[in-house]
Formats: sequence, structure tokens, C-alpha cells
Amino acid sequence: MKINTLLSMFAPKDVKFLPMLAETASILAQSSIYLQELFTSEDKERRDELCRLIKAEEVKGDIVTGSIIRELNNTFITPFDREDVHALADIMDDVIDVINRCAQKVLLYQPHAFPMHTASLVEIIKKGSDEILNAANELSNMKKTDFRLRAHCKEIKRLEEEADAVYEEAIMCLFKEEKSTVELIKLKEIIQELEKAVNKINSTGKVITTILVKYA
Amino acid sequence: MKINTLLSMFAPKDVKFLPMLAETASILAQSSIYLQELFTSEDKERRDELCRLIKAEEVKGDIVTGSIIRELNNTFITPFDREDVHALADIMDDVIDVINRCAQKVLLYQPHAFPMHTASLVEIIKKGSDEILNAANELSNMKKTDFRLRAHCKEIKRLEEEADAVYEEAIMCLFKEEKSTVELIKLKEIIQELEKAVNKINSTGKVITTILVKYA
Amino acid sequence: MKINTLLSMFAPKDVKFLPMLAETASILAQSSIYLQELFTSEDKERRDELCRLIKAEEVKGDIVTGSIIRELNNTFITPFDREDVHALADIMDDVIDVINRCAQKVLLYQPHAFPMHTASLVEIIKKGSDEILNAANELSNMKKTDFRLRAHCKEIKRLEEEADAVYEEAIMCLFKEEKSTVELIKLKEIIQELEKAVNKINSTGKVITTILVKYA
Repeated sequence: MKINTLLSMFAPKDVKFLPMLAETASILAQSSIYLQELFTSEDKERRDELCRLIKAEEVKGDIVTGSIIRELNNTFITPFDREDVHALADIMDDVIDVINRCAQKVLLYQPHAFPMHTASLVEIIKKGSDEILNAANELSNMKKTDFRLRAHCKEIKRLEEEADAVYEEAIMCLFKEEKSTVELIKLKEIIQELEKAVNKINSTGKVITTILVKYA
Repeated sequence: MKINTLLSMFAPKDVKFLPMLAETASILAQSSIYLQELFTSEDKERRDELCRLIKAEEVKGDIVTGSIIRELNNTFITPFDREDVHALADIMDDVIDVINRCAQKVLLYQPHAFPMHTASLVEIIKKGSDEILNAANELSNMKKTDFRLRAHCKEIKRLEEEADAVYEEAIMCLFKEEKSTVELIKLKEIIQELEKAVNKINSTGKVITTILVKYA
Repeated sequence: MKINTLLSMFAPKDVKFLPMLAETASILAQSSIYLQELFTSEDKERRDELCRLIKAEEVKGDIVTGSIIRELNNTFITPFDREDVHALADIMDDVIDVINRCAQKVLLYQPHAFPMHTASLVEIIKKGSDEILNAANELSNMKKTDFRLRAHCKEIKRLEEEADAVYEEAIMCLFKEEKSTVELIKLKEIIQELEKAVNKINSTGKVITTILVKYA
């Protein structure tokens, strides 16, 4: 007998975690929209404002994640296992944190210009965040929409592979073309942070896949 | 019915974890005292000795954390949930590890001089570690001293915000003023490691807050 | 009464996790063999091929780890606690990931030459991976071979201490001898990644020690 089947006998109809997880996902999606504008806007003042907006989303994300953890501690059985809600909330919060770190590094380092591949990387981050948002909104109806959830996870995986190639191009170009070592140091760190955001998005896809395999 | 209420019916009066957690906290506090001296002492020999002393504290921390984990595996119910003891021991051990990494990088890189903001950062690390030590010593009396515990956690959060601003200043000054790229590379890594220490101290505050919300 | 003794009353003879953990360990050992060749081969084409081979091992590792996690979710009691199987699978997967990251950085950065200490570091990684493989193969017979398991864990710890000294030498030489700042940036990152691999191998040793203390 599977443990999940065993637990499901006691499972109440408590689904308050799903809207909370969806809220985290929408904070993440908003962060990624700001990030994309940050890396493509020419307006210095707007860019500083975008860094503040991203920071504000990160604070919001912390608050929602905190509420999820607190609620988990007060609830015996959840719509899906406690540990899965925790893992999903945590990993989405990680994506938001890394996006915020990218933005703060841009604000702090003030690089002269962005190398050509950063725009592609932030576009991938934006698309991946949208896939997460769509997936989070379908968790409540998992048994009926599992094929759509699977498609979101597959697309996240594809985006990560695309990002890998872009990241490699970006770093190779940087070492080839950047003449100022100080600019190279700054931009390498920003590009590596963008790649970390993609990796965290990919980890989120894996957590959703695990949930799918267990419950759908 | 809350799960904690449920569990508390079985909770024995086993409180051996509290002195062990307090011991980890005092190792951490000692590390932070050495770190502060390391970043402010002019005496090269004393500085090398301080790096060794910090490493010795890190080894001690590993041993105590190991004992906590082993004891957890042999104990059915703990004064507060097994996972919370584990989380608190782990995160304090992380702070000690990062402090040790800072010290080893100073020893290894032998930077010519410390930029002006590092002294402020290590002072914040020292203060944060003291708050953790005070909080750890009050865990055994949580229900009566929850207002004091809350104050320690709030102060840790405030220190982290203060450190954020100092860190940004430190990095901006470094890029503006350091003429040697090699020195810049070394000092940037040391400053980033100090900031990580502050972040881990802040995470410790969050774990204590979670424990407070659950049990106080 | 110890919780493990309690649980063991219900423990089935389900040992399918042991071959899966051993498989992960052998993927890790193979990665480390390729890594060592990568850092010692003079043939550029062979080196590019080795990076691809390491990547392929990393993909295999992901698949096996995924299977372990999925099986864990479908199994009530495991030969040793669910959390220990999870921890061991995860940490071995981490080593494989870091080895892959080393290789991809070599491929990406194409440093002009490896500093003299990298060969020693990869040799330590190779030896540590072999110790893990041997330990994984003895888990099924833990009660009889606990002295051998203990010896593997001790040797892993010794290797980590050896690597610490080599790492420090490597970084000091690099800062002293490398004249090109760009090469210094590249090689420092590769050496730091190699050191991370050693740290993850050491963490694997700690997880195995925990299992030993609990069950042997």
C-alpha cells in the first residue's frame, strides 16, 4: 500500500495552500517582468526604480512564504504532503531571491553596458516564471489538468537547456570582447547570477514534476 | 487540533538539546570575537594565530552539531520538534563555517589593507552573534521570555538591514578606489563572504522566530 | 527505546535502494575518472570529448536520483530511514553536479594551462569518489563490514584535509605567479570549483558516517 493512499484516507478538504502558492508564483512572475525591463531599459532613473520594485516583490515573497510555513505548522494534513508544499514555496522564494540579487548587483555595479546575451537570458527567466505561474494556477485541478502541468514542466526544462547555450555564449563573448578587466568582473557576476535564476526555475519545475508523479 | 498540541501530549521533559544549542551559540559568539580582532589587528603574527583559533572553533562547532544530530536520532520526542532543533543547530553551524571561511580567505589572500567598511561589517557580525547567543540562552524559558526572544530576533533583522547598506558602500568604494585589479578581486571575495555571514545570522534569526511562533 | 529499534519491527526486507545508491556511486566514480583525464590530457579534442562524457554522466545521475526519490515516495519503510536514503542520494548527486560544473568551466574558459596543483586536486577527487563507491557497495552488509565502512569514511576525511592544504598552495601560487588577470580569474574559479567537489565528497562521508552510527 502506498503511503499517499494511506494518508489520503485522513486528508481533509483543506486547500488554502493552493491560493498561497499561486500568490508566490504571481510575485515571481512580476519580479521577472521588472527584471526584463531592467536589462532592456536605457533610462537610468527607471532602472533604479525597477531595482527598488524588485526588492519590494522580494519582501512580499518573504511574507507569503512565511505565512505558508506558519500555516503548515498549524495544519495536520494538507492537500498534498506538507513537505511538498514546503518545497514548492521554498524554491519559488529562491527564484525571487536570485532575481532580486541580480537586480541589486546591477544597481550596485552600474556596468557601462549589458553584453548582447543578457537580454536573451532575462527573456528566458521571464518565460520560465510564466510557466511556473500557469502551473501553480493548475495545481488545484491537478487530476484533470495533469497533461497541461506536464507540458509546463517540459517547457521549463527546454528553457533551461536553451539558457545553458546562451549562458555559454555570453561568457565566451565576455572573455573575448570585454577589454576592461573591472567590467569583465562585474558582468561575469551578473551573468552568473542570471544563470542561477534559470537553474532555480528549473528546480521549481522538478518540484512540480515530483508533485505530479505523486498525486495526479 | 494543532499538531503541536497533539504532540505535546507525548512530550517528555527531555531538555538536553537546549544546553547543546547554547553551546553552539557560544562557539559562534567566540568565533565572531576572533573575527573582529582579525579585521582590526595590525599584528601579522596575531592575525595568523586568530585564523587558527577561528578554525579551532569551527572544528568544535562541527563536533557539537554532530552530537546534536546523533542525539536527535536516538530521541523520540524533543523539547521542540526534532526538525526545529536540527534547523537551529544547522544554521548556527553555517554561521560558524562562513566566519571560518572569511578568516581562511584573509590568511590565504593576505590583502595589503582592509577597506574602511570591513570593520563595520565584522562589528555587525559580532553584534548579531551576541544576539543569537542571548536568544539561545533564553530558549529554555521560552514562554516567560518570549518578548525578549522577539527583541533579539528583531535586532538581528535590523542589523542585517544595516549590513546591507554597509556592504553596498563597501563594494562601491572598492570599485571606485582600488587601483590594483588583483587586490580588488581578493577584497571583493572577502567582503562578499562577510555579507554571507550576516545573511546566515539573519537566517538564524528567522529559525528562532519560527520556533517562537510555534511554541511560545 | 530508540526510534530506530521501534521502526525496525516494521521494516520489510525491501532493499532495492541499495543497488540504486551503488549505481549513483559508480556514476560518480566514472565522472571523477573522466575529470582526472580532463585535467591531465594534452589533447584538446579529447578534452572536449571528456567534458561531453562528464555531462552525460551528470544526466545519468539525475535520472537515477529521480528514480530513488520516486521509489521513496512509493515505499513505506526502507532498509534504512527514508531521510537517510534521500540524503545519501542527494549528496552523491551534488558531487556529480560539481564535477560536471568543473568540466563545463574548463570547456567554457579554455585556460591556457593548468597550474601545477590542479592535478593533485583532481587526483584527490578521484580517490575520494572511489572511497564512496566502495562504501556504497558495502552498505548492504553494514553490520558485518562496519569497520571497513568506517575506514572509508576516515580516509575521505583525511583526503579532505590533504586537499585543503593543496587548495591553499594552489591559490597562493596562482596569485603569486599568474601574470594575466584574466587567466587568474578563470583559474581561480576552476580551482574553487575543484575544492567544492572535495567538500561535497567530504559531506558524503559524513552522511555515510551518520548512517553507520544509526544502523551498524
